[in-house]
Amino acid sequence: MKQTLPKLVHHVFFWLKNPDSKADLAQLLDGIRSLAAIETVRSLHVGVPASTEVRPVIDSSYSASELITFDSVADEQAYQVHPLHQKFVEDHKHLWSKVVVYDSIAV
Amino acid sequence: MKQTLPKLVHHVFFWLKNPDSKADLAQLLDGIRSLAAIETVRSLHVGVPASTEVRPVIDSSYSASELITFDSVADEQAYQVHPLHQKFVEDHKHLWSKVVVYDSIAV
Repeated sequence: MKQTLPKLVHHVFFWLKNPDSKADLAQLLDGIRSLAAIETVRSLHVGVPASTEVRPVIDSSYSASELITFDSVADEQAYQVHPLHQKFVEDHKHLWSKVVVYDSIAV
Repeated sequence: MKQTLPKLVHHVFFWLKNPDSKADLAQLLDGIRSLAAIETVRSLHVGVPASTEVRPVIDSSYSASELITFDSVADEQAYQVHPLHQKFVEDHKHLWSKVVVYDSIAV
């Protein structure tokens, strides 16, 4: 049976300054998990590159993947300014060298 | 209430050769929707860049976003070789100039 996803998909990829540090990765992943407490977050996926086949189009260079679904753009904006999200950024931004965000709305 | 997502997230971003062509975009989006018929697909999000705030870390240059969840890497591999997926690639690859894929497994 298929699952219906909320309309707004917010997908963030993090590249660690120290990509070989398991401690830094664990700290970042724990931080991402804390975001589930934000009211407007409908679902949260915390991941790392999967062991799918190697193909040139696949980017598996990132350290951590944070996928959050929301019901609307307004709910994503409420999340951006939420104290728990701001605390996450403040407490963890020293860990990453690059972040790429994709916000996609269902059509 | 939070929604639990399947473990494997397969997120594909497409850049159209003709990014201003609404016909090409519609054709690509319809093609992506056809992938929902593949048995191992647990959920499918078909999207375009959302009108969230403009920030340097946000990549909104893509034309279409295809987010598919699977229960496992094996289910994603079954999808890759499925005739419907191969037909989608054959029928639509002339439309895009670039594809980036992120496969992320929940941890």
